[in-house]
Amino acid sequence: MKTLHFEKQAVCPETGARAGLLHTAHGTIETPVFMPVGTQGTVKGLTRKHLLEELDAKIILGNTYHLYLRPGHKLIEGFGGLHGFMQWPRAILTDSGGFQVWSLSQLRKLKEEGVLFRSHLNGDQHMFTPESTVDVQLSLGSDIMMMLDECTDYPSSHAEARKSMEMTVRWARRGMRHYRERMESREPRNALFPIVQGSMYADLRRECVAQLGELDAEGYAVGGLSVGEPRELSMEMTEVTVPLLPADKPRYVMGVGAPEELPEYVARGVDMMDCVMPTRNARNGYLFTSEGKVVIKQAQYREDSRPLDENCRCHTCTTYSRAYLRHLFQAGEILFSTLATLHNLTHYLDIMRRMREAILLGTFPEFLKTARRLASSPNSAHTS
Amino acid sequence: MKTLHFEKQAVCPETGARAGLLHTAHGTIETPVFMPVGTQGTVKGLTRKHLLEELDAKIILGNTYHLYLRPGHKLIEGFGGLHGFMQWPRAILTDSGGFQVWSLSQLRKLKEEGVLFRSHLNGDQHMFTPESTVDVQLSLGSDIMMMLDECTDYPSSHAEARKSMEMTVRWARRGMRHYRERMESREPRNALFPIVQGSMYADLRRECVAQLGELDAEGYAVGGLSVGEPRELSMEMTEVTVPLLPADKPRYVMGVGAPEELPEYVARGVDMMDCVMPTRNARNGYLFTSEGKVVIKQAQYREDSRPLDENCRCHTCTTYSRAYLRHLFQAGEILFSTLATLHNLTHYLDIMRRMREAILLGTFPEFLKTARRLASSPNSAHTS
Repeated sequence: MKTLHFEKQAVCPETGARAGLLHTAHGTIETPVFMPVGTQGTVKGLTRKHLLEELDAKIILGNTYHLYLRPGHKLIEGFGGLHGFMQWPRAILTDSGGFQVWSLSQLRKLKEEGVLFRSHLNGDQHMFTPESTVDVQLSLGSDIMMMLDECTDYPSSHAEARKSMEMTVRWARRGMRHYRERMESREPRNALFPIVQGSMYADLRRECVAQLGELDAEGYAVGGLSVGEPRELSMEMTEVTVPLLPADKPRYVMGVGAPEELPEYVARGVDMMDCVMPTRNARNGYLFTSEGKVVIKQAQYREDSRPLDENCRCHTCTTYSRAYLRHLFQAGEILFSTLATLHNLTHYLDIMRRMREAILLGTFPEFLKTARRLASSPNSAHTS
Repeated sequence: MKTLHFEKQAVCPETGARAGLLHTAHGTIETPVFMPVGTQGTVKGLTRKHLLEELDAKIILGNTYHLYLRPGHKLIEGFGGLHGFMQWPRAILTDSGGFQVWSLSQLRKLKEEGVLFRSHLNGDQHMFTPESTVDVQLSLGSDIMMMLDECTDYPSSHAEARKSMEMTVRWARRGMRHYRERMESREPRNALFPIVQGSMYADLRRECVAQLGELDAEGYAVGGLSVGEPRELSMEMTEVTVPLLPADKPRYVMGVGAPEELPEYVARGVDMMDCVMPTRNARNGYLFTSEGKVVIKQAQYREDSRPLDENCRCHTCTTYSRAYLRHLFQAGEILFSTLATLHNLTHYLDIMRRMREAILLGTFPEFLKTARRLASSPNSAHTS
């Protein structure tokens, strides 16, 4: 059974960066790809038109934890899944909910069976198991579903990290078995990716890859990064893990990254990424531009008639001044979130498009060199 | 000097409802018109594209009080006025700020010279005079500016209301004199409308009209309605005032109304209206439909797959279910405000378009009869 088709188009011989096409039941995704996060059935601040016509996003994320709690996956299933509910015609990836249980839920209790937690909305008790999260995501109808994993705390001792990683592997086996049973009676439209854990220990990461590899999934993700560790460690773990993942399958690093990190991940063979940074930072007035970060509330932008980013072709940059954007931010206007999100995501997606083009043209090493030079300049968005 | 041209196209012989074209420096407005409120340089929740392409709004409102305090009218003037600052190519009407001083400012002191007040943002002291508010609005570059008036408290004794009305008239004389001086050296692009006050006293309203009429302004507004009085009184005052206003000039009733009131005002010869109701109610989950009010948070909409309003052609109604809208509202998503505002304003502007058509076709009395029948039905939006 095959629900995805990953077509590799080019590999940079120097770095291993890859360009490809990921064919899903809801259209084809050009990789490497950055996926905007649409937590609760909408990318915060944007309309569908923004996503389809202005950003031309081919895939967005949904959050299983949030949608499970509200409005409920069964309700969404009744609307033809998340695609029908939110009227999104293109691909959707959903996480398993494990990360949100780990980061949002007050009371959680890890058991072999799964994770017991209390809703952050009303305190109700729920349980996620490897099986139930597959079922929830099948109700959501996600093109790419994620396996329930245990998000290891950072920092963790080697022993703790091993214990946690082994749980993730056992859960992945159970989840995959359940998934395959469920798929026997379904159209092959929903893929399931296991998630590599192992904290910041190279040996555990390698071991996890080896064991998850046996599941012969259609794609693999690297989790447990961007959890507070220094960037060097995230990169080291990516370098250890990604080359071991099947080369003919998509590789997804979860929850990354800052704009200047995107080329670093792609240079390490990563095909897919997601992060709340462009959307959340936008709403908080932190804007990424080709010349570095703009913190729009700063007084220096009060009368600044220039566009936010002269090199950006988004609606925000081609229409409005920094002064107007600052005014909207100071006044707490909804339009600020919309215009800022539109810009930040355009910035991210443009970086991805330019990288893809460079890989296809064979110029990715030069692209990477330039990107690294800009990232080390003083006004870089690095610290955001 | 003429900055506006009002072209009357049809008058309903039975009711006196009027259809016309109001030509401004920023395009032609078909009347009767409802003007969406854009308090702080944006109609809350909407993008320019929504206003231009989906609503096709020909004129929007800006609030002098808010824009004067933040970001400041001088800053806005430097961007080519409010049109340049917010990149709005069509007509703008600004109020004088008097109403906001009356309703928002904690400490205000009325003097013959003007009104002393403290900013609701930081407590700074400011003064608005009939002259200064003309200057502020000239900086904003409004196509239609409003005269500073004193908003009489409701209820007020006849003596208080007279005193207040007389102040409004004296201010209007000063404001008009100042305006004419200023316009000697400017292109004729900004009209100035005095505002009729007089609380709920017919004799004061009549007297005010007579005195303001001497100013030979290009249009007149009726203020001091929708300040807490019963609807019958608002209508009575409109009936007393509007027919006395010059028939060849636009007549604007400020701050009204609910959807079912729009036909009532138009039936009384009103050409222009504005109200925060469609936009503010939208953000609060109160939606106006052709079949009455929908309070979207109600549990009855949880799994409701129907469009919000089957008779509405807006993006919200042609794309999404009530269940999805309810989910967005419950989740506090920005998109809810956008979709709800788009719908409520579409509903308002459609009512206006249908009335205009009826007046032009000579069928307004029938339109009014139907509208009144619907308004008295139990599910009416009357009480919103």
